[in-house]
Amino acid sequence: MTESKHFEAERREDFNYFHSVELRWNDMDPYRHVNNARFYAFYDTAIMQYLTVDGGFDLLDGPVVPFTVENLCRFHRSFRYPAVVECGLRTARIGSSSVRYELGLFARGEVEVTATGYFIDVFVKREAEKPCPIPPDIRRHLEQILTHSN
Amino acid sequence: MTESKHFEAERREDFNYFHSVELRWNDMDPYRHVNNARFYAFYDTAIMQYLTVDGGFDLLDGPVVPFTVENLCRFHRSFRYPAVVECGLRTARIGSSSVRYELGLFARGEVEVTATGYFIDVFVKREAEKPCPIPPDIRRHLEQILTHSN
Amino acid sequence: MTESKHFEAERREDFNYFHSVELRWNDMDPYRHVNNARFYAFYDTAIMQYLTVDGGFDLLDGPVVPFTVENLCRFHRSFRYPAVVECGLRTARIGSSSVRYELGLFARGEVEVTATGYFIDVFVKREAEKPCPIPPDIRRHLEQILTHSN
Amino acid sequence: MTESKHFEAERREDFNYFHSVELRWNDMDPYRHVNNARFYAFYDTAIMQYLTVDGGFDLLDGPVVPFTVENLCRFHRSFRYPAVVECGLRTARIGSSSVRYELGLFARGEVEVTATGYFIDVFVKREAEKPCPIPPDIRRHLEQILTHSN
Repeated sequence: MTESKHFEAERREDFNYFHSVELRWNDMDPYRHVNNARFYAFYDTAIMQYLTVDGGFDLLDGPVVPFTVENLCRFHRSFRYPAVVECGLRTARIGSSSVRYELGLFARGEVEVTATGYFIDVFVKREAEKPCPIPPDIRRHLEQILTHSN
Repeated sequence: MTESKHFEAERREDFNYFHSVELRWNDMDPYRHVNNARFYAFYDTAIMQYLTVDGGFDLLDGPVVPFTVENLCRFHRSFRYPAVVECGLRTARIGSSSVRYELGLFARGEVEVTATGYFIDVFVKREAEKPCPIPPDIRRHLEQILTHSN
Repeated sequence: MTESKHFEAERREDFNYFHSVELRWNDMDPYRHVNNARFYAFYDTAIMQYLTVDGGFDLLDGPVVPFTVENLCRFHRSFRYPAVVECGLRTARIGSSSVRYELGLFARGEVEVTATGYFIDVFVKREAEKPCPIPPDIRRHLEQILTHSN
Repeated sequence: MTESKHFEAERREDFNYFHSVELRWNDMDPYRHVNNARFYAFYDTAIMQYLTVDGGFDLLDGPVVPFTVENLCRFHRSFRYPAVVECGLRTARIGSSSVRYELGLFARGEVEVTATGYFIDVFVKREAEKPCPIPPDIRRHLEQILTHSN
């Protein structure tokens, strides 16, 4: 199965954590859809929410912070304000200093996925901005949403 | 009493409609507070939410749309992600084609107001972009959150 | 003369420093104009450009940083992508720890001002986030664009 | 050669069109780098600039508009305000209704590429929002920046 087909078929149950994002009027561009760059802000926020609110990690003043090294989004449908976006998150690969998150965005009340994507983040020492091993407590938290199908 | 003191003393009960906005990671700037320009996006969204979701008015394809002609914000405190912003809204003056909204932003769980401001919007014909009388049904909706103390 | 009339009559020669901002596609909202919140990002950037690039002050790691306590914008016209925004800046009042900036936005090639506004910024110690006297070298730099008509 | 290595080795001469984007203060997030989502706004703007300003096509009121169906970014380095971003653009594949753009972002004065990415856009009829053949004049314009090495 190609990666593309896999992505189009994502369902809510394929994700292990959800964070809802309510659209703002100026998320839309003149095409009256949410602009493509905003999807990455939704993904980013779901990841940070999982780490800071759900996991309790301090990513502002703590010793390590995540830097994104690659991300991708496939736009299967579009969002229009007003709507609530349910952002599903799972981890798919956890390396020594990096993690691959996979994400899916669903409009509340809709079955079909609107967009899918991934983020590859590397943990770095906050001051030096150099990659470092993922701290054990963060690693355990990331493992809690690890998908078993990949 | 000066307008400034009035603003600093705003309480939740001074507003007649609330819309909650959940912060996003990239609402913050390098000073690790929500950037000043984002406060206007919160205000804007509360107004649009009141008109479209609460009032049922179509401001994308309908015959009239609101254009902002002046707005202001006073920053009494700051917001830091993660937090939920409760955005209070009231109308303070409803003219023939314009309306003055007054707004206050509260962090969920905090008593003190974080920021206060106003928007003056003019209704225009969507195609011509020329001011027009506020349609009666929109006017009635705006009157429902009119403050009686001003 | 009312403040409002003063604002509508602003000309390029009323400002003492200019920074150009090129519009981005997603500055526009569904009304196909630049969204009101973006005007504050343009103002903000002109002020930071004057302090960091023109003045050479380090506002990321330096001992003092500016926090905005109030800002306002009047929208006389609108911007549509693609266009270059010429952002005029002057200082109008320099207190012991605060400064009032006045700004005007002009579309390149247009005589009439599109929007006018002000920012009141307070300088704070970066770590403590408490107001402090404006450092003498920053004060001298702010005085270089002080308007003499106010 | 893997796609990844290819991307890291991108040089300015690998691109056929450039559009400069000046950073704004609030492009940065609390990590004091430009936030990942903004890179897509830079890419998006370079593409729209090539089509509207360079090509003269009306993508607001014209009969066809481009919708993004997939995009990706690799972050090799980071940007910090203030800086000018030189955004390189080329087309890599032009189908019947879709086009693949490849992009590279360079800090002015730097040899090494900061970020690379691609956008796959589909042209749709503006009203129906259904895919349509790329109009011949737009196709010719896209062919002018077609890379011959892919």
